[in-house]
Amino acid sequence: MKLVSFTYEGHHRIGCVVENQVIDLNLACQSMLEAEGKLRARQIAEAYVPANMREFLQGGEESLSMAKKAMKFVLLKSGNSPYKTIHLLSEVKLQAPIQHQGKIICVGHNYREHILEMGRELPDYPVLFAKFANTIIGPEEDIPLYPISEQLDYEAELAFVIGKQARNVAKEQALDYVAGYTIANDVSYRDLQKRTLQWLQGKSVDGSAPMGPWIVTGDELGDPGSLELVLTVNGKERQRSNTRNLVFTVPFLVEFLSGLMTLEPGDVILTGTPGGVGVARNPQAFLKDGDVVRIEIEGIGVLENRVKKQDWRNGK
Amino acid sequence: MKLVSFTYEGHHRIGCVVENQVIDLNLACQSMLEAEGKLRARQIAEAYVPANMREFLQGGEESLSMAKKAMKFVLLKSGNSPYKTIHLLSEVKLQAPIQHQGKIICVGHNYREHILEMGRELPDYPVLFAKFANTIIGPEEDIPLYPISEQLDYEAELAFVIGKQARNVAKEQALDYVAGYTIANDVSYRDLQKRTLQWLQGKSVDGSAPMGPWIVTGDELGDPGSLELVLTVNGKERQRSNTRNLVFTVPFLVEFLSGLMTLEPGDVILTGTPGGVGVARNPQAFLKDGDVVRIEIEGIGVLENRVKKQDWRNGK
Repeated sequence: MKLVSFTYEGHHRIGCVVENQVIDLNLACQSMLEAEGKLRARQIAEAYVPANMREFLQGGEESLSMAKKAMKFVLLKSGNSPYKTIHLLSEVKLQAPIQHQGKIICVGHNYREHILEMGRELPDYPVLFAKFANTIIGPEEDIPLYPISEQLDYEAELAFVIGKQARNVAKEQALDYVAGYTIANDVSYRDLQKRTLQWLQGKSVDGSAPMGPWIVTGDELGDPGSLELVLTVNGKERQRSNTRNLVFTVPFLVEFLSGLMTLEPGDVILTGTPGGVGVARNPQAFLKDGDVVRIEIEGIGVLENRVKKQDWRNGK
Repeated sequence: MKLVSFTYEGHHRIGCVVENQVIDLNLACQSMLEAEGKLRARQIAEAYVPANMREFLQGGEESLSMAKKAMKFVLLKSGNSPYKTIHLLSEVKLQAPIQHQGKIICVGHNYREHILEMGRELPDYPVLFAKFANTIIGPEEDIPLYPISEQLDYEAELAFVIGKQARNVAKEQALDYVAGYTIANDVSYRDLQKRTLQWLQGKSVDGSAPMGPWIVTGDELGDPGSLELVLTVNGKERQRSNTRNLVFTVPFLVEFLSGLMTLEPGDVILTGTPGGVGVARNPQAFLKDGDVVRIEIEGIGVLENRVKKQDWRNGK
């Protein structure tokens, strides 16, 4: 399934995308349960398939399979439902698939060919840093460029979303703990990032983590270890690689991270970016007002955001 | 007020400490509103003074003043309330004052005398890094020592809690955005911290951020700029300094951080630690099973936790 967070007439919902349609999973579930004669249909749907992605993922396999069943039910019987369970994709506004507080863990220096071409040695351990939830924006939002830096840069990344509480998980079982995959742009303010040894301040500006357009579930995507990814700015290719070049793979990262900390459903891990970022180009090429950054990852889709300069006095 | 999160008979509540008593603020508020003849007393109390610290702080000044009024009401009239609005401090279990997801922003290298004694120059910008919510433990919990490191270390820190959404706030107004102050121990696994240039992996192990015992509100604490802090291990002094030695003060940090990102009610900022940490001693002295780490900060109180070795197979 392609799981989305979206808004429709001001309401925040979750759904799944089937061709050009979005199925409202909570209402689909409620409709199905009512058709089964359940008097507590609304409450059961709310418990198992709530309209919030993190809460939905907390329900694990049980919630996912109820959602799948509801999707099939609605695709066959939508005419009979009193609710609007199906929208055209063009009618809704897609939001970042995960929007609420939780961990956002980023991996640096993780593409083999890029590390080697820079003349560095392959690292023994992943370099880890954080972003906070204030950075998350959706696939239909602009990347804000605040007048605090002239060095706004992009980073195309495969991101994966935790689907099950994970502590001390071996890499052989790791993919059981991954709900699915999405695309992230680890937008970075390079000058701020390099002011001190710790990168956080260049990575934590509001709006600096576009994500989406959806979470492709693990069963649909299959192996995350050989996906082509390409980033363009205004149509010109700037980054291209394949996740087979990852030094630290998705299963390794689940093992490594869960050996340090408890991972929770809805936590997002950004797996690092390949060569070609603006700060490393010759001459350097940073993002400016109006630039369109497009990331495509094989098997997932496209995340495209425009850069928009902000008037500081209007704050956020 | 001294604001606490606590559990009583399995229920998670918030309260304020008055001498050896804890007043349940949500129930105090409900009792007061019922005495005023409000039929929607429970719902109004829930809206303004919920039993969750982050949600309570979201209510801002309005919620805080209702809580204060309710506290006074209960201290005068507790005999008449049908609810248990007052507990003995010894009857409840204090939890970390803020426990849920949100930002935990840490400042490194922030005590002037310590930086100078190490022969370093004073930094131009604060060094920032993150911890996640999985690190938070309360004042009555043990610091877990996982068998992944032999270098568990302590860091005594003044922490402040954001009370109002803050974006681009000048330092002159900064303290209006601070709900209050607490004590934090930025527990660090030094060998993990130093495996890569980014410190996150040594800072993000489960249970590595003891906090508490309460949040002393800004109006009660007054100026956070001249507080003595002392850390002892098994009664022996290891760190002692005063917040007047902070290079980057609380108002400066609010201005600096809110210039990067939107700060939200309940976000916690750890202001850095003075000299005397275990890794910098000669010989080095790391924490071991059974050690008792006690931090006292003037005007706030005492945070004391015991180190407890974990059996890895029992995981978290």
